[in-house]
Amino acid sequence: MKLVKECRNIKLTLAYDGTGYSGFQRQLNTKMTIQEKLEEALGRLTKKEITLHGAGRTDAGVHALGQVVNFRTSASIPVERWPYALRGLLPPEIVVYKAEEVPKEFHARYTAVAKTYIYRIWSARWPSVFHQRYTLFYPGELQEDPIRETLEILKGTHDFRAFAAQGSAVRNTVRTISALVWEEKGDERVLTVRADGFLYHMVRNIVGTLLWVGEGRLTPEQVQAAMVAGQRKDLGPTAPPMGLCLKEVEYPPNHAKG
Amino acid sequence: MKLVKECRNIKLTLAYDGTGYSGFQRQLNTKMTIQEKLEEALGRLTKKEITLHGAGRTDAGVHALGQVVNFRTSASIPVERWPYALRGLLPPEIVVYKAEEVPKEFHARYTAVAKTYIYRIWSARWPSVFHQRYTLFYPGELQEDPIRETLEILKGTHDFRAFAAQGSAVRNTVRTISALVWEEKGDERVLTVRADGFLYHMVRNIVGTLLWVGEGRLTPEQVQAAMVAGQRKDLGPTAPPMGLCLKEVEYPPNHAKG
Repeated sequence: MKLVKECRNIKLTLAYDGTGYSGFQRQLNTKMTIQEKLEEALGRLTKKEITLHGAGRTDAGVHALGQVVNFRTSASIPVERWPYALRGLLPPEIVVYKAEEVPKEFHARYTAVAKTYIYRIWSARWPSVFHQRYTLFYPGELQEDPIRETLEILKGTHDFRAFAAQGSAVRNTVRTISALVWEEKGDERVLTVRADGFLYHMVRNIVGTLLWVGEGRLTPEQVQAAMVAGQRKDLGPTAPPMGLCLKEVEYPPNHAKG
Repeated sequence: MKLVKECRNIKLTLAYDGTGYSGFQRQLNTKMTIQEKLEEALGRLTKKEITLHGAGRTDAGVHALGQVVNFRTSASIPVERWPYALRGLLPPEIVVYKAEEVPKEFHARYTAVAKTYIYRIWSARWPSVFHQRYTLFYPGELQEDPIRETLEILKGTHDFRAFAAQGSAVRNTVRTISALVWEEKGDERVLTVRADGFLYHMVRNIVGTLLWVGEGRLTPEQVQAAMVAGQRKDLGPTAPPMGLCLKEVEYPPNHAKG
Protein backbone atom coordinates (compact mmCIF):
# COMPACT_ATOMS: atom_id res chain seq x y z
CA MET A 1 0.00 0.00 0.00
CA LYS A 2 1.30 3.39 -1.03
CA LEU A 3 0.84 5.79 1.89
CA VAL A 4 2.55 8.92 0.57
CA LYS A 5 1.08 10.38 -2.59
CA GLU A 6 3.46 11.90 -5.07
CA CYS A 7 3.65 15.62 -4.37
CA ARG A 8 3.79 17.74 -7.50
CA ASN A 9 5.20 21.25 -7.78
CA ILE A 10 2.83 23.44 -9.82
CA LYS A 11 3.77 26.78 -11.37
CA LEU A 12 0.95 29.20 -12.26
CA THR A 13 1.23 32.35 -14.36
CA LEU A 14 -1.43 34.98 -13.72
CA ALA A 15 -2.65 38.49 -14.42
CA TYR A 16 -4.51 40.76 -12.05
CA ASP A 17 -6.04 44.19 -11.76
CA GLY A 18 -4.60 45.28 -8.40
CA THR A 19 -7.01 48.20 -7.93
CA GLY A 20 -8.77 47.70 -4.62
CA TYR A 21 -6.32 45.04 -3.44
CA SER A 22 -3.83 45.48 -0.61
CA GLY A 23 -1.06 44.00 -2.73
CA PHE A 24 0.09 40.48 -3.52
CA GLN A 25 1.31 39.28 -0.16
CA ARG A 26 -0.97 37.80 2.49
CA GLN A 27 -1.58 40.11 5.44
CA LEU A 28 -3.14 39.59 8.82
CA ASN A 29 -5.53 42.54 8.77
CA THR A 30 -7.14 42.13 5.35
CA LYS A 31 -8.49 39.42 3.10
CA MET A 32 -8.01 41.63 0.04
CA THR A 33 -4.66 40.33 -1.11
CA ILE A 34 -3.99 38.40 -4.29
CA GLN A 35 -2.24 35.62 -2.33
CA GLU A 36 -5.24 35.19 -0.02
CA LYS A 37 -7.69 34.94 -2.93
CA LEU A 38 -5.46 32.48 -4.77
CA GLU A 39 -4.81 30.28 -1.74
CA GLU A 40 -8.52 30.29 -0.95
CA ALA A 41 -9.40 29.22 -4.51
CA LEU A 42 -6.67 26.56 -4.54
CA GLY A 43 -7.89 25.31 -1.16
CA ARG A 44 -11.44 24.93 -2.45
CA LEU A 45 -10.18 23.16 -5.55
CA THR A 46 -7.87 20.69 -3.80
CA LYS A 47 -9.74 20.40 -0.49
CA LYS A 48 -6.37 20.98 1.19
CA GLU A 49 -4.73 24.03 2.66
CA ILE A 50 -2.31 25.44 0.08
CA THR A 51 0.59 27.79 0.78
CA LEU A 52 2.07 29.39 -2.27
CA HIS A 53 5.21 31.34 -3.11
CA GLY A 54 4.97 34.41 -5.33
CA ALA A 55 7.73 35.75 -7.55
CA GLY A 56 7.12 39.41 -6.80
CA ARG A 57 5.48 41.12 -3.83
CA THR A 58 3.54 43.72 -5.75
CA ASP A 59 2.27 46.58 -3.59
CA ALA A 60 -1.31 47.76 -3.02
CA GLY A 61 -2.77 48.99 -6.31
CA VAL A 62 -0.02 47.47 -8.47
CA HIS A 63 -1.09 45.18 -11.34
CA ALA A 64 0.36 42.11 -13.01
CA LEU A 65 0.31 40.60 -16.46
CA GLY A 66 2.76 37.82 -15.67
CA GLN A 67 3.04 37.17 -11.93
CA VAL A 68 4.31 33.66 -11.15
CA VAL A 69 3.51 31.50 -8.13
CA ASN A 70 4.27 27.90 -7.19
CA PHE A 71 2.89 25.46 -4.65
CA ARG A 72 3.02 21.77 -3.85
CA THR A 73 -0.02 19.54 -4.11
CA SER A 74 -0.97 15.89 -4.24
CA ALA A 75 -4.16 16.72 -6.17
CA SER A 76 -4.42 14.72 -9.35
CA ILE A 77 -6.05 17.45 -11.49
CA PRO A 78 -4.27 17.42 -14.90
CA VAL A 79 -1.97 20.41 -15.13
CA GLU A 80 -3.68 21.92 -18.18
CA ARG A 81 -7.02 21.98 -16.30
CA TRP A 82 -5.85 24.21 -13.44
CA PRO A 83 -6.52 27.58 -15.18
CA TYR A 84 -10.05 26.53 -16.20
CA ALA A 85 -10.81 25.03 -12.79
CA LEU A 86 -9.64 28.22 -11.02
CA ARG A 87 -11.66 30.52 -13.29
CA GLY A 88 -14.91 30.10 -11.39
CA LEU A 89 -13.24 30.18 -7.98
CA LEU A 90 -11.38 33.46 -8.36
CA PRO A 91 -12.73 37.02 -8.49
CA PRO A 92 -12.78 38.39 -12.08
CA GLU A 93 -9.78 40.67 -11.36
CA ILE A 94 -7.47 37.64 -11.05
CA VAL A 95 -6.93 35.44 -14.10
CA VAL A 96 -4.64 32.39 -14.00
CA TYR A 97 -3.86 31.68 -17.66
CA LYS A 98 -1.04 29.13 -17.52
CA ALA A 99 -0.14 26.11 -15.37
CA GLU A 100 2.92 23.88 -15.62
CA GLU A 101 4.38 21.08 -13.55
CA VAL A 102 7.93 22.03 -12.57
CA PRO A 103 10.84 20.23 -10.86
CA LYS A 104 10.53 20.01 -7.09
CA GLU A 105 13.35 22.51 -6.51
CA PHE A 106 11.60 25.28 -8.51
CA HIS A 107 10.70 28.31 -6.35
CA ALA A 108 8.79 31.20 -7.97
CA ARG A 109 10.93 33.79 -6.21
CA TYR A 110 14.37 32.22 -5.71
CA THR A 111 14.60 30.50 -9.10
CA ALA A 112 13.74 33.71 -10.98
CA VAL A 113 16.61 35.19 -13.00
CA ALA A 114 14.91 38.36 -14.25
CA LYS A 115 11.74 40.38 -13.81
CA THR A 116 10.23 42.97 -16.10
CA TYR A 117 7.98 45.77 -14.91
CA ILE A 118 6.19 48.37 -16.98
CA TYR A 119 5.01 51.76 -15.78
CA ARG A 120 2.30 53.50 -17.80
CA ILE A 121 1.86 57.28 -17.83
CA TRP A 122 -1.19 58.94 -19.40
CA SER A 123 -0.05 62.31 -20.65
CA ALA A 124 -3.11 63.60 -22.52
CA ARG A 125 -4.85 66.79 -21.40
CA TRP A 126 -7.65 64.83 -19.70
CA PRO A 127 -7.58 61.50 -17.91
CA SER A 128 -8.95 58.54 -19.83
CA VAL A 129 -11.85 56.86 -18.05
CA PHE A 130 -10.80 53.55 -19.61
CA HIS A 131 -7.11 53.78 -18.66
CA GLN A 132 -7.04 55.64 -15.38
CA ARG A 133 -7.04 52.51 -13.24
CA TYR A 134 -3.86 51.39 -15.00
CA THR A 135 -1.98 54.61 -15.72
CA LEU A 136 -0.64 57.64 -13.88
CA PHE A 137 -2.43 60.74 -15.19
CA TYR A 138 0.32 63.27 -15.84
CA PRO A 139 -0.82 66.01 -18.20
CA GLY A 140 2.34 68.16 -18.08
CA GLU A 141 4.88 68.47 -20.87
CA LEU A 142 7.92 66.19 -20.53
CA GLN A 143 11.28 66.80 -22.17
CA GLU A 144 12.22 63.47 -23.68
CA ASP A 145 15.94 64.09 -24.27
CA PRO A 146 17.05 64.39 -20.62
CA ILE A 147 14.82 61.43 -19.77
CA ARG A 148 16.61 59.28 -22.35
CA GLU A 149 19.98 60.53 -21.09
CA THR A 150 19.04 59.47 -17.57
CA LEU A 151 18.07 56.00 -18.78
CA GLU A 152 21.62 55.56 -20.09
CA ILE A 153 22.98 56.45 -16.63
CA LEU A 154 20.71 53.92 -14.90
CA LYS A 155 21.27 51.00 -17.25
CA GLY A 156 23.72 48.33 -16.17
CA THR A 157 25.06 47.24 -12.78
CA HIS A 158 24.92 49.86 -10.02
CA ASP A 159 24.33 50.27 -6.35
CA PHE A 160 20.70 51.41 -6.47
CA ARG A 161 20.31 52.20 -2.77
CA ALA A 162 19.35 55.80 -3.65
CA PHE A 163 16.31 54.32 -5.41
CA ALA A 164 15.26 52.07 -2.53
CA ALA A 165 12.49 53.02 -0.11
CA GLN A 166 14.06 54.71 2.91
CA GLY A 167 14.42 52.40 5.85
CA SER A 168 14.45 49.20 3.83
CA ALA A 169 16.85 46.72 5.39
CA VAL A 170 18.27 44.90 2.36
CA ARG A 171 22.03 44.44 2.68
CA ASN A 172 23.01 44.10 -0.96
CA THR A 173 21.63 47.00 -2.98
CA VAL A 174 23.54 46.26 -6.19
CA ARG A 175 21.25 45.33 -9.08
CA THR A 176 21.66 44.98 -12.84
CA ILE A 177 19.17 46.70 -15.14
CA SER A 178 19.46 44.78 -18.40
CA ALA A 179 16.80 46.72 -20.31
CA LEU A 180 15.34 50.17 -19.74
CA VAL A 181 13.10 51.55 -22.48
CA TRP A 182 10.96 54.69 -22.62
CA GLU A 183 8.32 54.63 -25.34
CA GLU A 184 5.71 57.06 -26.61
CA LYS A 185 2.50 55.28 -27.62
CA GLY A 186 -0.08 57.89 -28.56
CA ASP A 187 -1.18 59.59 -25.34
CA GLU A 188 0.80 57.08 -23.29
CA ARG A 189 4.40 56.99 -22.13
CA VAL A 190 5.54 53.52 -21.12
CA LEU A 191 8.70 52.71 -19.17
CA THR A 192 9.87 49.10 -19.37
CA VAL A 193 12.48 47.93 -16.83
CA ARG A 194 14.08 44.49 -16.83
CA ALA A 195 16.48 43.62 -14.01
CA ASP A 196 17.83 40.63 -12.10
CA GLY A 197 15.99 41.94 -9.05
CA PHE A 198 14.41 45.06 -7.65
CA LEU A 199 14.73 46.94 -4.38
CA TYR A 200 11.55 47.98 -2.59
CA HIS A 201 9.88 50.85 -4.54
CA MET A 202 12.79 50.88 -7.01
CA VAL A 203 10.69 51.16 -10.19
CA ARG A 204 8.36 53.75 -8.73
CA ASN A 205 11.33 55.80 -7.50
CA ILE A 206 12.94 55.59 -10.93
CA VAL A 207 9.68 56.79 -12.51
CA GLY A 208 9.30 59.67 -10.04
CA THR A 209 12.87 60.68 -10.77
CA LEU A 210 12.40 60.48 -14.55
CA LEU A 211 9.30 62.68 -14.30
CA TRP A 212 11.29 65.30 -12.41
CA VAL A 213 14.02 65.06 -15.04
CA GLY A 214 11.39 65.48 -17.78
CA GLU A 215 10.05 68.56 -16.02
CA GLY A 216 13.53 70.07 -15.68
CA ARG A 217 13.53 69.83 -11.86
CA LEU A 218 16.53 67.46 -11.91
CA THR A 219 19.33 67.07 -14.45
CA PRO A 220 20.74 63.71 -15.56
CA GLU A 221 24.00 64.74 -13.88
CA GLN A 222 22.23 65.31 -10.57
CA VAL A 223 20.64 61.87 -10.84
CA GLN A 224 24.05 60.32 -11.44
CA ALA A 225 25.55 62.16 -8.47
CA ALA A 226 22.69 61.11 -6.16
CA MET A 227 23.04 57.50 -7.30
CA VAL A 228 26.77 57.48 -6.62
CA ALA A 229 26.26 59.17 -3.23
CA GLY A 230 23.32 56.87 -2.38
CA GLN A 231 21.14 59.87 -1.50
CA ARG A 232 17.44 59.04 -1.76
CA LYS A 233 16.52 62.61 -0.77
CA ASP A 234 18.25 64.07 -3.85
CA LEU A 235 16.02 62.15 -6.27
CA GLY A 236 12.39 62.39 -7.35
CA PRO A 237 9.33 61.17 -5.40
CA THR A 238 7.83 57.67 -5.39
CA ALA A 239 5.41 57.50 -8.32
CA PRO A 240 1.92 56.21 -7.38
CA PRO A 241 1.16 52.49 -7.68
CA MET A 242 -1.61 52.41 -10.31
CA GLY A 243 0.78 52.86 -13.24
CA LEU A 244 2.95 49.88 -12.27
CA CYS A 245 2.55 46.37 -13.63
CA LEU A 246 4.67 43.22 -13.21
CA LYS A 247 4.89 42.14 -16.82
CA GLU A 248 7.06 39.04 -16.79
CA VAL A 249 9.20 36.82 -14.58
CA GLU A 250 11.94 34.79 -16.26
CA TYR A 251 13.50 31.48 -15.18
CA PRO A 252 16.42 29.41 -16.44
CA PRO A 253 15.42 27.45 -19.57
CA ASN A 254 15.74 24.10 -17.78
CA HIS A 255 13.18 24.79 -15.05
CA ALA A 256 10.22 23.20 -16.87
CA LYS A 257 9.72 19.53 -16.06
CA GLY A 258 10.25 17.15 -18.88
CA MET B 1 -31.68 98.02 -13.33
CA LYS B 2 -31.36 94.69 -15.09
CA LEU B 3 -33.40 92.12 -13.17
CA VAL B 4 -33.09 89.11 -15.45
CA LYS B 5 -29.59 87.80 -15.95
CA GLU B 6 -28.72 86.52 -19.35
CA CYS B 7 -29.31 82.75 -19.35
CA ARG B 8 -26.68 80.84 -21.28
CA ASN B 9 -27.08 77.42 -22.84
CA ILE B 10 -24.00 75.28 -22.09
CA LYS B 11 -23.08 72.10 -23.94
CA LEU B 12 -20.71 69.65 -22.22
CA THR B 13 -18.97 66.65 -23.80
CA LEU B 14 -17.96 63.90 -21.40
CA ALA B 15 -16.57 60.39 -21.00
CA TYR B 16 -17.46 57.91 -18.33
CA ASP B 17 -16.75 54.40 -17.11
CA GLY B 18 -20.30 53.14 -16.59
CA THR B 19 -19.26 50.10 -14.51
CA GLY B 20 -21.12 50.31 -11.22
CA TYR B 21 -23.54 52.97 -12.45
CA SER B 22 -27.27 52.41 -13.04
CA GLY B 23 -27.05 54.14 -16.41
CA PHE B 24 -27.13 57.74 -17.57
CA GLN B 25 -30.66 58.76 -16.70
CA ARG B 26 -31.70 59.97 -13.26
CA GLN B 27 -33.76 57.42 -11.32
CA LEU B 28 -35.77 57.66 -8.15
CA ASN B 29 -34.32 54.63 -6.36
CA THR B 30 -30.58 55.22 -6.83
CA LYS B 31 -28.07 58.02 -6.71
CA MET B 32 -25.69 56.06 -8.93
CA THR B 33 -26.60 57.55 -12.27
CA ILE B 34 -24.36 59.72 -14.42
CA GLN B 35 -27.05 62.43 -14.64
CA GLU B 36 -27.40 62.58 -10.84
CA LYS B 37 -23.63 62.95 -10.34
CA LEU B 38 -23.40 65.61 -13.04
CA GLU B 39 -26.38 67.62 -11.79
CA GLU B 40 -25.03 67.42 -8.25
CA ALA B 41 -21.61 68.70 -9.36
CA LEU B 42 -23.16 71.46 -11.48
CA GLY B 43 -25.38 72.42 -8.56
CA ARG B 44 -22.39 72.76 -6.24
CA LEU B 45 -20.54 74.80 -8.85
CA THR B 46 -23.35 77.22 -9.69
CA LYS B 47 -25.14 77.21 -6.30
CA LYS B 48 -28.36 76.64 -8.29
CA GLU B 49 -30.36 73.54 -9.07
CA ILE B 50 -29.44 72.41 -12.58
CA THR B 51 -31.51 70.12 -14.80
CA LEU B 52 -29.68 68.80 -17.80
CA HIS B 53 -30.61 67.02 -21.01
CA GLY B 54 -28.49 64.11 -22.22
CA ALA B 55 -28.07 63.03 -25.82
CA GLY B 56 -28.23 59.30 -25.16
CA ARG B 57 -29.76 57.34 -22.30
CA THR B 58 -27.01 54.80 -21.88
CA ASP B 59 -28.03 51.74 -19.85
CA ALA B 60 -26.52 50.41 -16.63
CA GLY B 61 -22.91 49.37 -17.24
CA VAL B 62 -22.63 51.13 -20.61
CA HIS B 63 -19.74 53.57 -21.11
CA ALA B 64 -19.25 56.81 -23.02
CA LEU B 65 -16.37 58.55 -24.73
CA GLY B 66 -18.48 61.38 -26.18
CA GLN B 67 -21.79 61.74 -24.35
CA VAL B 68 -23.26 65.25 -24.74
CA VAL B 69 -25.47 67.15 -22.30
CA ASN B 70 -26.81 70.69 -22.18
CA PHE B 71 -28.30 72.92 -19.50
CA ARG B 72 -29.19 76.56 -18.93
CA THR B 73 -27.40 78.69 -16.37
CA SER B 74 -26.92 82.28 -15.41
CA ALA B 75 -23.55 81.48 -13.81
CA SER B 76 -20.81 83.69 -15.16
CA ILE B 77 -18.03 81.07 -15.14
CA PRO B 78 -16.11 81.40 -18.45
CA VAL B 79 -17.07 78.49 -20.70
CA GLU B 80 -13.52 77.15 -21.02
CA ARG B 81 -13.28 76.84 -17.22
CA TRP B 82 -16.21 74.46 -16.81
CA PRO B 83 -14.26 71.20 -17.42
CA TYR B 84 -11.54 72.18 -14.93
CA ALA B 85 -14.04 73.40 -12.35
CA LEU B 86 -16.03 70.15 -12.59
CA ARG B 87 -12.95 67.94 -12.27
CA GLY B 88 -12.79 68.11 -8.48
CA LEU B 89 -16.56 67.84 -8.06
CA LEU B 90 -17.12 64.66 -10.06
CA PRO B 91 -16.13 61.07 -9.24
CA PRO B 92 -13.05 59.96 -11.22
CA GLU B 93 -15.19 57.75 -13.50
CA ILE B 94 -16.81 60.83 -15.06
CA VAL B 95 -14.63 63.26 -17.03
CA VAL B 96 -16.06 66.38 -18.69
CA TYR B 97 -13.47 67.38 -21.27
CA LYS B 98 -15.21 70.01 -23.40
CA ALA B 99 -17.61 72.90 -22.77
CA GLU B 100 -19.16 75.25 -25.31
CA GLU B 101 -21.79 77.96 -25.23
CA VAL B 102 -24.50 77.06 -27.75
CA PRO B 103 -27.59 78.86 -29.15
CA LYS B 104 -30.61 78.80 -26.84
CA GLU B 105 -32.53 76.37 -29.09
CA PHE B 106 -29.79 73.68 -28.86
CA HIS B 107 -30.97 70.48 -27.16
CA ALA B 108 -28.47 67.63 -26.62
CA ARG B 109 -31.02 65.01 -27.67
CA TYR B 110 -33.35 66.67 -30.18
CA THR B 111 -30.70 68.63 -32.09
CA ALA B 112 -28.51 65.53 -32.59
CA VAL B 113 -28.31 64.30 -36.19
CA ALA B 114 -26.22 61.16 -35.65
CA LYS B 115 -24.81 59.00 -32.89
CA THR B 116 -21.96 56.52 -33.03
CA TYR B 117 -21.63 53.56 -30.68
CA ILE B 118 -18.82 51.05 -30.50
CA TYR B 119 -19.08 47.55 -29.09
CA ARG B 120 -15.84 45.84 -28.01
CA ILE B 121 -15.42 42.07 -27.91
CA TRP B 122 -12.39 40.41 -26.33
CA SER B 123 -11.83 37.18 -28.19
CA ALA B 124 -8.56 35.92 -26.74
CA ARG B 125 -8.43 32.61 -24.91
CA TRP B 126 -8.40 34.33 -21.51
CA PRO B 127 -10.07 37.54 -20.36
CA SER B 128 -7.82 40.57 -20.04
CA VAL B 129 -7.81 42.00 -16.54
CA PHE B 130 -7.20 45.45 -18.03
CA HIS B 131 -9.99 45.30 -20.62
CA GLN B 132 -12.71 43.21 -19.03
CA ARG B 133 -14.65 46.18 -17.65
CA TYR B 134 -14.94 47.54 -21.19
CA THR B 135 -15.23 44.45 -23.39
CA LEU B 136 -17.37 41.35 -23.73
CA PHE B 137 -15.18 38.28 -23.15
CA TYR B 138 -16.04 35.90 -25.98
CA PRO B 139 -13.33 33.31 -26.47
CA GLY B 140 -15.05 31.25 -29.21
CA GLU B 141 -14.06 31.24 -32.86
CA LEU B 142 -16.10 33.61 -35.06
CA GLN B 143 -16.50 33.23 -38.82
CA GLU B 144 -15.88 36.69 -40.19
CA ASP B 145 -17.40 36.26 -43.67
CA PRO B 146 -21.04 35.73 -42.67
CA ILE B 147 -20.67 38.56 -40.13
CA ARG B 148 -19.55 40.94 -42.88
CA GLU B 149 -22.38 39.73 -45.12
CA THR B 150 -24.88 40.50 -42.35
CA LEU B 151 -23.46 44.02 -41.94
CA GLU B 152 -24.31 44.67 -45.61
CA ILE B 153 -27.91 43.60 -44.95
CA LEU B 154 -28.24 45.92 -41.93
CA LYS B 155 -26.66 49.01 -43.48
CA GLY B 156 -29.01 51.68 -44.77
CA THR B 157 -32.61 52.59 -43.99
CA HIS B 158 -34.75 49.78 -42.58
CA ASP B 159 -37.50 49.09 -40.12
CA PHE B 160 -35.39 47.84 -37.20
CA ARG B 161 -38.27 46.77 -34.93
CA ALA B 162 -36.87 43.21 -34.88
CA PHE B 163 -33.79 44.69 -33.16
CA ALA B 164 -35.71 46.72 -30.56
CA ALA B 165 -36.22 45.49 -27.00
CA GLN B 166 -39.54 43.66 -26.83
CA GLY B 167 -42.30 45.78 -25.38
CA SER B 168 -40.71 49.12 -26.27
CA ALA B 169 -43.42 51.56 -27.27
CA VAL B 170 -41.72 53.64 -29.97
CA ARG B 171 -44.06 54.19 -32.94
CA ASN B 172 -41.56 54.83 -35.70
CA THR B 173 -39.00 52.02 -35.81
CA VAL B 174 -37.36 53.05 -39.09
CA ARG B 175 -33.74 54.09 -38.67
CA THR B 176 -30.82 54.71 -41.01
CA ILE B 177 -27.46 53.07 -40.28
CA SER B 178 -24.95 55.22 -42.15
CA ALA B 179 -21.85 53.32 -41.07
CA LEU B 180 -21.41 49.79 -39.77
CA VAL B 181 -17.85 48.52 -39.47
CA TRP B 182 -16.44 45.30 -37.96
CA GLU B 183 -12.72 45.47 -37.22
CA GLU B 184 -10.14 43.06 -35.87
CA LYS B 185 -7.63 44.78 -33.60
CA GLY B 186 -5.34 42.15 -32.12
CA ASP B 187 -7.38 40.19 -29.57
CA GLU B 188 -10.27 42.60 -29.96
CA ARG B 189 -13.22 42.74 -32.34
CA VAL B 190 -14.81 46.18 -32.52
CA LEU B 191 -18.18 46.96 -34.06
CA THR B 192 -18.79 50.62 -34.91
CA VAL B 193 -22.39 51.70 -35.64
CA ARG B 194 -23.38 55.20 -36.75
CA ALA B 195 -27.08 55.97 -37.19
CA ASP B 196 -29.53 58.86 -37.10
CA GLY B 197 -31.05 57.28 -34.00
CA PHE B 198 -31.24 54.00 -32.12
CA LEU B 199 -34.08 51.92 -30.77
CA TYR B 200 -33.82 50.65 -27.19
CA HIS B 201 -31.16 47.85 -27.06
CA MET B 202 -30.68 48.10 -30.83
CA VAL B 203 -26.86 47.97 -30.81
CA ARG B 204 -26.73 45.17 -28.20
CA ASN B 205 -29.29 43.17 -30.20
CA ILE B 206 -27.29 43.69 -33.40
CA VAL B 207 -24.16 42.47 -31.58
CA GLY B 208 -25.92 39.42 -30.11
CA THR B 209 -27.18 38.60 -33.60
CA LEU B 210 -23.76 39.05 -35.22
CA LEU B 211 -22.22 36.72 -32.63
CA TRP B 212 -24.78 34.04 -33.46
CA VAL B 213 -24.04 34.56 -37.16
CA GLY B 214 -20.32 34.26 -36.45
CA GLU B 215 -20.96 31.01 -34.58
CA GLY B 216 -23.07 29.62 -37.42
CA ARG B 217 -26.29 29.58 -35.35
CA LEU B 218 -27.95 32.07 -37.75
CA THR B 219 -27.36 32.73 -41.44
CA PRO B 220 -27.31 36.21 -42.98
CA GLU B 221 -30.45 35.19 -44.89
CA GLN B 222 -32.26 34.33 -41.66
CA VAL B 223 -31.29 37.72 -40.22
CA GLN B 224 -32.69 39.44 -43.29
CA ALA B 225 -35.93 37.44 -43.09
CA ALA B 226 -36.35 38.23 -39.37
CA MET B 227 -35.72 41.93 -40.02
CA VAL B 228 -38.33 42.01 -42.81
CA ALA B 229 -40.83 40.09 -40.67
CA GLY B 230 -40.04 42.21 -37.59
CA GLN B 231 -39.49 39.09 -35.49
CA ARG B 232 -37.30 39.82 -32.46
CA LYS B 233 -37.48 36.15 -31.39
CA ASP B 234 -35.79 34.97 -34.61
CA LEU B 235 -32.62 36.96 -33.92
CA GLY B 236 -29.74 36.65 -31.46
CA PRO B 237 -29.77 37.62 -27.77
CA THR B 238 -29.09 41.04 -26.26
CA ALA B 239 -25.33 41.34 -25.78
CA PRO B 240 -24.28 42.41 -22.26
CA PRO B 241 -23.77 46.12 -21.52
CA MET B 242 -20.06 46.27 -20.62
CA GLY B 243 -18.87 46.11 -24.25
CA LEU B 244 -20.97 49.09 -25.32
CA CYS B 245 -19.74 52.67 -25.48
CA LEU B 246 -21.37 55.86 -26.82
CA LYS B 247 -18.49 57.20 -28.88
CA GLU B 248 -19.83 60.37 -30.48
CA VAL B 249 -22.91 62.52 -30.93
CA GLU B 250 -23.07 64.76 -33.99
CA TYR B 251 -24.94 68.03 -34.48
CA PRO B 252 -25.55 70.31 -37.48
CA PRO B 253 -22.46 72.44 -38.17
CA ASN B 254 -24.24 75.69 -37.25
CA HIS B 255 -25.11 74.70 -33.68
CA ALA B 256 -22.06 76.27 -32.06
CA LYS B 257 -22.58 79.84 -30.96
CA GLY B 258 -20.55 81.92 -33.18
